[in-house]
Amino acid sequence: VGDLASHVGGEVVGNAALPISGVSGLSEAKSSELSFFANPRYRKQLKSTQAGAVLVPSQLTELGPGPVWIRVSNPHLAFAKICALFYPRPQRKPGVDARASVHEAARVHPTASVLAGACIEAGAQVGARTLVYPGAYIGERSIVGDDCILYPNCTIREDCQVGSRVILHSGCVIGADGFGFAFDASVPEHFKVPQVGTVRIEDDVEVGACTCVDRAATGETVIGRGSKIDNLVQIAHNVRVGPLSIVCAQAGVSGSSELGSGVVLAGQVGVVGHIKVGDMARVGAQSGVAQDVPAGATISGTPAIDHRQWLRVAAVQPELGKILRELRELRSRVQALMDKREA
Amino acid sequence: VGDLASHVGGEVVGNAALPISGVSGLSEAKSSELSFFANPRYRKQLKSTQAGAVLVPSQLTELGPGPVWIRVSNPHLAFAKICALFYPRPQRKPGVDARASVHEAARVHPTASVLAGACIEAGAQVGARTLVYPGAYIGERSIVGDDCILYPNCTIREDCQVGSRVILHSGCVIGADGFGFAFDASVPEHFKVPQVGTVRIEDDVEVGACTCVDRAATGETVIGRGSKIDNLVQIAHNVRVGPLSIVCAQAGVSGSSELGSGVVLAGQVGVVGHIKVGDMARVGAQSGVAQDVPAGATISGTPAIDHRQWLRVAAVQPELGKILRELRELRSRVQALMDKREA
Amino acid sequence: VGDLASHVGGEVVGNAALPISGVSGLSEAKSSELSFFANPRYRKQLKSTQAGAVLVPSQLTELGPGPVWIRVSNPHLAFAKICALFYPRPQRKPGVDARASVHEAARVHPTASVLAGACIEAGAQVGARTLVYPGAYIGERSIVGDDCILYPNCTIREDCQVGSRVILHSGCVIGADGFGFAFDASVPEHFKVPQVGTVRIEDDVEVGACTCVDRAATGETVIGRGSKIDNLVQIAHNVRVGPLSIVCAQAGVSGSSELGSGVVLAGQVGVVGHIKVGDMARVGAQSGVAQDVPAGATISGTPAIDHRQWLRVAAVQPELGKILRELRELRSRVQALMDKREA
Repeated sequence: VGDLASHVGGEVVGNAALPISGVSGLSEAKSSELSFFANPRYRKQLKSTQAGAVLVPSQLTELGPGPVWIRVSNPHLAFAKICALFYPRPQRKPGVDARASVHEAARVHPTASVLAGACIEAGAQVGARTLVYPGAYIGERSIVGDDCILYPNCTIREDCQVGSRVILHSGCVIGADGFGFAFDASVPEHFKVPQVGTVRIEDDVEVGACTCVDRAATGETVIGRGSKIDNLVQIAHNVRVGPLSIVCAQAGVSGSSELGSGVVLAGQVGVVGHIKVGDMARVGAQSGVAQDVPAGATISGTPAIDHRQWLRVAAVQPELGKILRELRELRSRVQALMDKREA
Repeated sequence: VGDLASHVGGEVVGNAALPISGVSGLSEAKSSELSFFANPRYRKQLKSTQAGAVLVPSQLTELGPGPVWIRVSNPHLAFAKICALFYPRPQRKPGVDARASVHEAARVHPTASVLAGACIEAGAQVGARTLVYPGAYIGERSIVGDDCILYPNCTIREDCQVGSRVILHSGCVIGADGFGFAFDASVPEHFKVPQVGTVRIEDDVEVGACTCVDRAATGETVIGRGSKIDNLVQIAHNVRVGPLSIVCAQAGVSGSSELGSGVVLAGQVGVVGHIKVGDMARVGAQSGVAQDVPAGATISGTPAIDHRQWLRVAAVQPELGKILRELRELRSRVQALMDKREA
Repeated sequence: VGDLASHVGGEVVGNAALPISGVSGLSEAKSSELSFFANPRYRKQLKSTQAGAVLVPSQLTELGPGPVWIRVSNPHLAFAKICALFYPRPQRKPGVDARASVHEAARVHPTASVLAGACIEAGAQVGARTLVYPGAYIGERSIVGDDCILYPNCTIREDCQVGSRVILHSGCVIGADGFGFAFDASVPEHFKVPQVGTVRIEDDVEVGACTCVDRAATGETVIGRGSKIDNLVQIAHNVRVGPLSIVCAQAGVSGSSELGSGVVLAGQVGVVGHIKVGDMARVGAQSGVAQDVPAGATISGTPAIDHRQWLRVAAVQPELGKILRELRELRSRVQALMDKREA
């Protein structure tokens, strides 16, 4: 416990000599494991936990008996850092498996691991210690940096750039053609606008399973440094996602829109094309964003409005039937008053 | 007809000796085929069908001339059972194709079929008669039960458990990392919380194409026995889906939420994190569920409310502009009345 | 410039002899590149562009100095046609790579290219000049026409038909089982209704990354000629999408519904099952369509209503709290008037 606490700058309350063999959630942790408490929802689980040690917020005062407590400013972050000690990133033997298809004109760093069934095309590059799983595909001339993980069945199309320490989850697709057509009434047909741009994914980005980041029509689609994108997200052509942004599952950003720095889109949000979402803006789940969003705003709803206003609207909305009835009733009363007056 | 009818416990009205060679929908069925009638929408198609035999609900009395009728309590279920006779599940020659990549430390049952281009990692297990298609991936130490079908390009990451008679459709991803980060302002960065838990998929589950079931942060994400999940669904880390639940396409369930037994989420529903949806609850399409749902409830809307109340709201909502106008008009009348009174 | 202008029937204003080496967006274009101006939002970029030549709408009169102008009736379409000159569709050496898995009973046209790691099953057919990337899968007896592109890790299940000039993007799944179950209370279980139909994709269709087109329960799911489907879209069993329709990212169409000709579904739209959306109808982003839509209609909202009415509703909705307050205030005033009257 003592070593772990000092790794995260925490203060131990209890037996610092207790040995810890793993990490777990409050409910499942055993007496040899470390857990954490951050969300007040889990106060009950905190009371009954069997964990040997628990990371708690510094300001928590009533620490009962039971586990050894480790006080830290951010228990979730401290837990993450301790987890990373117990579970290092996956590693495989360096080198290219004989059953991988690596083009002779591809450059794979000797410390990279390319597993059976992976495919790396001509002109592609793979950096140091990068791990390429079976079924992962790296297209012609695409460049993948150091210490990346390309999970099974992810796809990087041609001419894309992926930075270092990037994680691409299974089934994600980087660099598919943007959705661009020009209607030609003379045929008639939707004539395909060749998508001749590319995708640039900066360092420390994570892209979720089955998430699609389309290549630009011309120029680049960009996912900025340290941004994290969840599963099943759509990032259309020419979108720019600023550094350190968070895009939750099933959200979609339409063509040429820009998310600033530190933006958060909750799940199933939709953002129309050609707009800007300012730095640090937060958008509530399922919202539809149809115009520019100022920096720092918190918005919700379709079309999205200020979040507090939306909460009021959401509270009144279920009463709409009643409101209509009251209005009709009031009208008859007023009519009655007017009738009497005239009488 | 007679044999099929007795297979589903049906009563034949007409020539039980008619030979049936296949199954089809009411509109397309030929005179040698069997069809079914369950949804009253298709009454017109019932009248004009060319089918040789039609499964109908027992209570249907006006059976005209034409096909042989088979009366059953549940025509859709009876049709499904007869379909299964004509179209048994896909089968391939048992054994491991030479072009599959199966680690020597994996255990594949001799009756399982592993096709070219499938990949099974060290410590993984594949049960009896399970069929693993090209491009399917089974990670280290993951266990797949008997009689499963893993369709092309589906992915099971390491340390997951899949029961028996499970169907995983193409492009689905079981066990990708949950979306967990702790913000470290000192860098700044979103520090990845290692997702050290796993996924357990119980018997008789079906997971749709491009659906993602994330591995738990710690502990398990669970899809309960007999649950059916459609395409493009997001099941986040530590979610528990009860037995016999139905999750329709493009729905998403956020982290640590629980769906009870027999729950139905319609298409594009979103469920926030850390809540419980009670047994047998039903949630209407595109709804946003933001708090616990009692067992047996039927809810709709964002935020979701009682379904019947939502129907009233939905009926009034288009009149909002008119309501506002009426309100303003009423206000002027009242003002006029008050003015006159004072005068 | 002159040659390009005549290729698209445009009128040159300026030096028709200027050589053009590529295409680009207004902001990034260099003096040797051609760009286009179609969306008035980009007027500023038009003024400052460094492009050598710019396609502009014929009616645009104030053409300042700077680039050579090419006047055309549809600059976006003209740009697309010129792009296609500079960037022809991807091509590879004809033939089957030794590391592809092609069944001996499959028929691959000698001019087709089947790359390493692709898989083509027994009875499947691949047409002339079709390009099959690594990880693409064509199931038993499925037929793919001429000049198609099957990008990495896309899946076509058995018995499907794909026309000519079709593009299937990475991760898309054609012909997964439709989502059909019949509840059998006696077990209890959701009994799988075998999905014994198929998918037919007509000529000139494009299917986006991670999009799912399910096979029919019986009969066919159809994507009509020239329709374009974006990423992460769900097309359920027995759906029919008319010719020249556009379905944007993350939209979903439920079972047995029909989209007419030239229909447009914007992003994240949901369409319930068993309804018809008429020819040329347009549905706004995130809308929920719960009943038949007349031809030519433009609708929005959940449930979807006429788009202009929806705009009014959307404008009033944020004021719901205020409306309720006004109503309550008015009621007290009326009550006061009535009280005085009685007094």
